[in-house]
Order: sequence, then C-alpha cells, then structure tokens
Amino acid sequence: MGPQTMVYPMPALLVGALVDGKPNFMTAAWGGIANGEPPMISVALRHGRYTLKGITRNLTFSVNVPSIDMVKAVDYCGITSGAEVDKVKACQFKVFYGKLDNAPLVEQCPVNLECRVVHTLDLESHSLIVGRIEETHVTQSCLTNGEPDVNKVKPLIYIREPASQYQALGEVVAKAFSVGEELKARQ
Amino acid sequence: MGPQTMVYPMPALLVGALVDGKPNFMTAAWGGIANGEPPMISVALRHGRYTLKGITRNLTFSVNVPSIDMVKAVDYCGITSGAEVDKVKACQFKVFYGKLDNAPLVEQCPVNLECRVVHTLDLESHSLIVGRIEETHVTQSCLTNGEPDVNKVKPLIYIREPASQYQALGEVVAKAFSVGEELKARQ
Repeated sequence: MGPQTMVYPMPALLVGALVDGKPNFMTAAWGGIANGEPPMISVALRHGRYTLKGITRNLTFSVNVPSIDMVKAVDYCGITSGAEVDKVKACQFKVFYGKLDNAPLVEQCPVNLECRVVHTLDLESHSLIVGRIEETHVTQSCLTNGEPDVNKVKPLIYIREPASQYQALGEVVAKAFSVGEELKARQ
Repeated sequence: MGPQTMVYPMPALLVGALVDGKPNFMTAAWGGIANGEPPMISVALRHGRYTLKGITRNLTFSVNVPSIDMVKAVDYCGITSGAEVDKVKACQFKVFYGKLDNAPLVEQCPVNLECRVVHTLDLESHSLIVGRIEETHVTQSCLTNGEPDVNKVKPLIYIREPASQYQALGEVVAKAFSVGEELKARQ
C-alpha cells in the first residue's frame, strides 16, 4: 500500500498548553508512552500548530484523556485553531493547574498528565515532543477501590479506516501476562 | 497519583527484528505514529530487550498489528524472550519479508509496517526508536473496496487498569472531523 501512518488503535488525546497567556487544547492521535522509569510520553504535533508554540515557549504541556461523552469537544479541538477561537470557552472546559504553572488541565477529562519537555525531535512534518510526566490526576469517580478503572474512564479511540471516526472500547478478550502461559507450557 | 504511564487506549503491537540471524517478535504497547510526511512510527523498548539488539544492529524493524484472535501469541511474545525461545516456532508465525531485508513480518497479522530507524533516543529505562515506514502491507481479506477496514482487522487494545488485559474495539461513537462542527456552528 506504500508507506502509511497505519496503526490500530490510536488514542484521541487533548494536548494542552498555555499560548499567548491563555490555555489551549488540541486533539492528537499520535502519541504514546515513551519511557517507563521515569514515566515519559511522546506526542507528534504538526509544525505550525498553535499549541506547539506554547509548548516550545514554556517547555510544559498537558495530556488529557477524554471520555466518549466528550466526543464533540474532542472533535472541535481537532478542527479549529486556538489562534482563531477560544476553545476553552467553546467547549466549556473547566481548566485547572497542578504542579506545573503552564500546563493547563481539563477537569472534565478523567485522566490528566502534567508534562515537562525533555526532548524535541524535529521530524519532517511534525515535532515529536517527549515529556516527562510530572504528575497524574484521575477523576475520583473513575476510581474503583482507589485504582483507575477503564470502565469508568470510557476512553475514546481514533480510527482512520475505513472512515475517520471515534470508537469506544469493546469487550475484554483476555488477561495479559497470563493467556500466553498456555503456549509457554506447550514448549 | 504521582507520575504514571497512563494513557488510554494503548495498542498491542508485535515489533519484529532479525536477531542473531533469526526473526524475533516482541509485544509493545508503547508506540504510535511520530510523523506524517513521510510516515514514521515510534516504539519504546526497554534497554536490554533481545529484539532491540537486532534493531540496533540492522537499523530496520517491523511493526505488526495483530487481531484479537492472535491474543495468545501476542501475550506469549510479551512474557518470553527470544534469547531463550523460538517465538516464531512457538506461535507458528508465518514470516515473510517485503522491501527491507532485515524486517521480518508476520503473515497472520492484518497490518505490517516495514521500518528503517531514523532516530534513537536513549531515554532512561527505554530506547525510543523512531522509524520511517518504508512499506505497509494489509491482508487482502481485511480490505473493503480496496481500503483497510478496521472491522476486519479487529485490533487488540492493551489496557493496564484496573487489570492488565486485552480488549477489542467497541461501537462507533461519532464521525471525526464532523461531530465537532455542531460546536463550531454555535460560536
């Protein structure tokens, strides 16, 4: 098929930064964990993005994991630019701050990561920003026995093919670090 | 919660390399697209991983997107090391090669990416490998009208909380680049 940016699944994340003194959020599907100890995350943002301007200036940003009921806001933050609209106002985001001064967080998102830039890779169309996760916030109502519960988080999944769409998480297939034991036992 | 490697969803990918002359595959949940034009992907692999040894030597690797019916093999490739077992034999993978000599691909996986390393970021516990996607293969039976169809790919999703498990993709929530227009119209 030729070179394609084709991976399943991709997240639908809201990446936040303070730009020109105001909090702004953009939707990003190209991101994931980059390091374990200490925790780091990477996000790929197209050069020229308004949010990237704030990240480059402050060297801090946030990653907010939205839930399926926020799909309109998530899509809106992907099709508009903070250079032209006030996304916080349009989406009625409640913004809060944690440890980092310039990493605005969205209260409606069940999971929020506060990040400090540790590397920036200038790739051809995008910048790959690697951030150290300085703090993690999980909404109280998304915990079960004090632990984050994905059934309450209800994350959004971005799927490009056959049509660009958001999907929910489906049924449990198997337990990890466990179902493969069967094959192991056969050796 | 303190710094956590918490993002939803994460993929369950099989990263392949030729190590000590034989194809080997490891399971990786920490990866995603890193650049658009040209297409690039990043994967975070713990230092000392057997697969990483092959990637570092050859500067080529593969990313294979498994489907839910491969869950046992995917988990097995995450809990074993190619230094000790022959994963291809254990999982009965049919291995093929495309454009790149040292990027083994798994025929049973509906999507395969052939990658050439363009950057390696030595982070603390992991190496973040950025690869240029040189070729993309999609299994014929996973196409609809010549386009990849996620309903046929049936990708695996890795979820860490509340328990480490693999999940399937769920229902469509909304159309992307579309559902947010409603909020846009309100401004």
